[in-house]
Amino acid sequence: MKKSVFVKNVQIGGGAPVSVQTMTNTPTYDVKATVDSVNRLSEAGADIVRVSVPDLRSVAALKKIILETEAPIVADVHFDPDIAVAAVEAGAHKLRLNPANMPERAIKNIACAVKERNIPVRIGVNAGSLKKSVSPVRLAEITADAAKRLEDSGLTELVLAVKSSDVKATVEAYRALDKMSRHPLHIGLTEAGTERSGSVKSAIAIGALLLDGIGDTLRVSLSGDPLKEVMWGYRILRAAGVRNDFAEVIACPTCARTEIDVTAFAEKIESITANCRKQLKIAVMGCAVNGIGESRGAEIAVCGGKDKSLIFKGGKPYKTVENSRIFDELTELIKEKIGE
Amino acid sequence: MKKSVFVKNVQIGGGAPVSVQTMTNTPTYDVKATVDSVNRLSEAGADIVRVSVPDLRSVAALKKIILETEAPIVADVHFDPDIAVAAVEAGAHKLRLNPANMPERAIKNIACAVKERNIPVRIGVNAGSLKKSVSPVRLAEITADAAKRLEDSGLTELVLAVKSSDVKATVEAYRALDKMSRHPLHIGLTEAGTERSGSVKSAIAIGALLLDGIGDTLRVSLSGDPLKEVMWGYRILRAAGVRNDFAEVIACPTCARTEIDVTAFAEKIESITANCRKQLKIAVMGCAVNGIGESRGAEIAVCGGKDKSLIFKGGKPYKTVENSRIFDELTELIKEKIGE
Repeated sequence: MKKSVFVKNVQIGGGAPVSVQTMTNTPTYDVKATVDSVNRLSEAGADIVRVSVPDLRSVAALKKIILETEAPIVADVHFDPDIAVAAVEAGAHKLRLNPANMPERAIKNIACAVKERNIPVRIGVNAGSLKKSVSPVRLAEITADAAKRLEDSGLTELVLAVKSSDVKATVEAYRALDKMSRHPLHIGLTEAGTERSGSVKSAIAIGALLLDGIGDTLRVSLSGDPLKEVMWGYRILRAAGVRNDFAEVIACPTCARTEIDVTAFAEKIESITANCRKQLKIAVMGCAVNGIGESRGAEIAVCGGKDKSLIFKGGKPYKTVENSRIFDELTELIKEKIGE
Repeated sequence: MKKSVFVKNVQIGGGAPVSVQTMTNTPTYDVKATVDSVNRLSEAGADIVRVSVPDLRSVAALKKIILETEAPIVADVHFDPDIAVAAVEAGAHKLRLNPANMPERAIKNIACAVKERNIPVRIGVNAGSLKKSVSPVRLAEITADAAKRLEDSGLTELVLAVKSSDVKATVEAYRALDKMSRHPLHIGLTEAGTERSGSVKSAIAIGALLLDGIGDTLRVSLSGDPLKEVMWGYRILRAAGVRNDFAEVIACPTCARTEIDVTAFAEKIESITANCRKQLKIAVMGCAVNGIGESRGAEIAVCGGKDKSLIFKGGKPYKTVENSRIFDELTELIKEKIGE
């Protein structure tokens, strides 16, 4: 298990649930816009919100933003160590640095400020930020080396990231880094693209790592509204089986054997269970081929038949109903289960 | 490398590109509807189309469907060995069986028909079709054993699948099966659900396997229009880096540092390159932080600045243009590259 750090009240690593991060894209100096954005993102489920701090004007704004929001705030600072120190002193709950663009000699000063405030630092090395292209394993080594240097300056509360815009390279880099370090890992793909292409690439990269048990916090980076990043973060965590506090609807893909309108039932059931925060597996199956087996593995299920269908409850056949009654029967069982 | 088989003119395994499959959901006995569906799916890029053959009426239809379509057709038969034999004799280009629901004693007859026609057989064991739930490794063993029995009956042209509706279990089962067998693998998640949830689960399961180099043909099973299955199949292949014959738009997620409208540019460029069938990497980056590095790795790129931005060509700085000129400059370079 990885070591753990706290970003305000959110634990990363040490067995804590994988947290979902995102980043505002309002100008940070615009306090009102950024506060509104941070609050909207927290409400949507973002556990941690990062803001870019490119200049002193943004540092002044950061101080106000932190006072006016509840979310743990990460300050993202590049190039200028004085800004990094100022962001820490302004109250950032975590500092994100890219060692590739921060002067080595300045690390000591930053370390001093960070230790005084007792906050964690994320070292995020992005393939795109390096002077020349390197292998995934080398990217991991560069990051582990940077972590070592920070440790030598007395910083032990670290989170590491090694992002690339290539899915395979990202997965290889994290697998290598996971073996090299006990610091918790922030996973994600960088410059993933628009929602259309970026969500699939992120799902594969983040999903493959989560299946390996790698990743303590994540960000799905997408161009556009950061709200989508939060939504995709949860979708990926759920699909990878890492978070189970929701209603999962299993549905067969429908074929010529299908006896009932599987898609319509599945979509209706997804709608009525959208806000369910309990683990619940519901199967909607068009016929008996895989229907019986899948129904046995679900809390609530229907296995379609020609005029009548078989409803399952707790994995066991419960009753046979007219096909016109299926939705009402399922709804009743769902209400019973989620205690509405 | 896996052995290879041919489904009509499409090679599976032996280093062939990973093919995309889907399955019709029209009633197979409705020849016209099914022919239309097969043709529409082939046009959308489906390399192989499967149809369910549940009864003798569908066998008669299958014969006509095969005559009226170009696509390789797989007959999906359950429970009844006589139907399986009849489907093979009707001209199916591949037979899909689930050994868990086909009587053992009938395998010899089926093998005879298959050998005479010289077509491959896919053995697809779905977790949901078994009498009791088994571990992923056991699922793989059951499938490898079934393959062994078919080999003993003289059938060597096999494709294997071990699907489950659980992402992690599916990945584990395929990783195990990959080690056990040299037969090509048909990968996918079964009963994945509606497009909304099923696409993410399929992307993770199929994507994780493709990154491992596992998978010779795939199906994304989703409830609803099978056209979506084809579309998602290609999205996953591309995102996993398995198919490179398209224009990939890399875009930064935008933050307070962003100087240009990255999302708008990226989406516009995705639109104008949607039909590109050449490998082309285009980067749209909002600022210099990761912009320079990502631009170096792309054929065409823009790295945003305050009023003027830097255009890259062939990974090298090409020219600085007013921000109002960015889109025209990129379009020109893209046209030059894809030879329009």
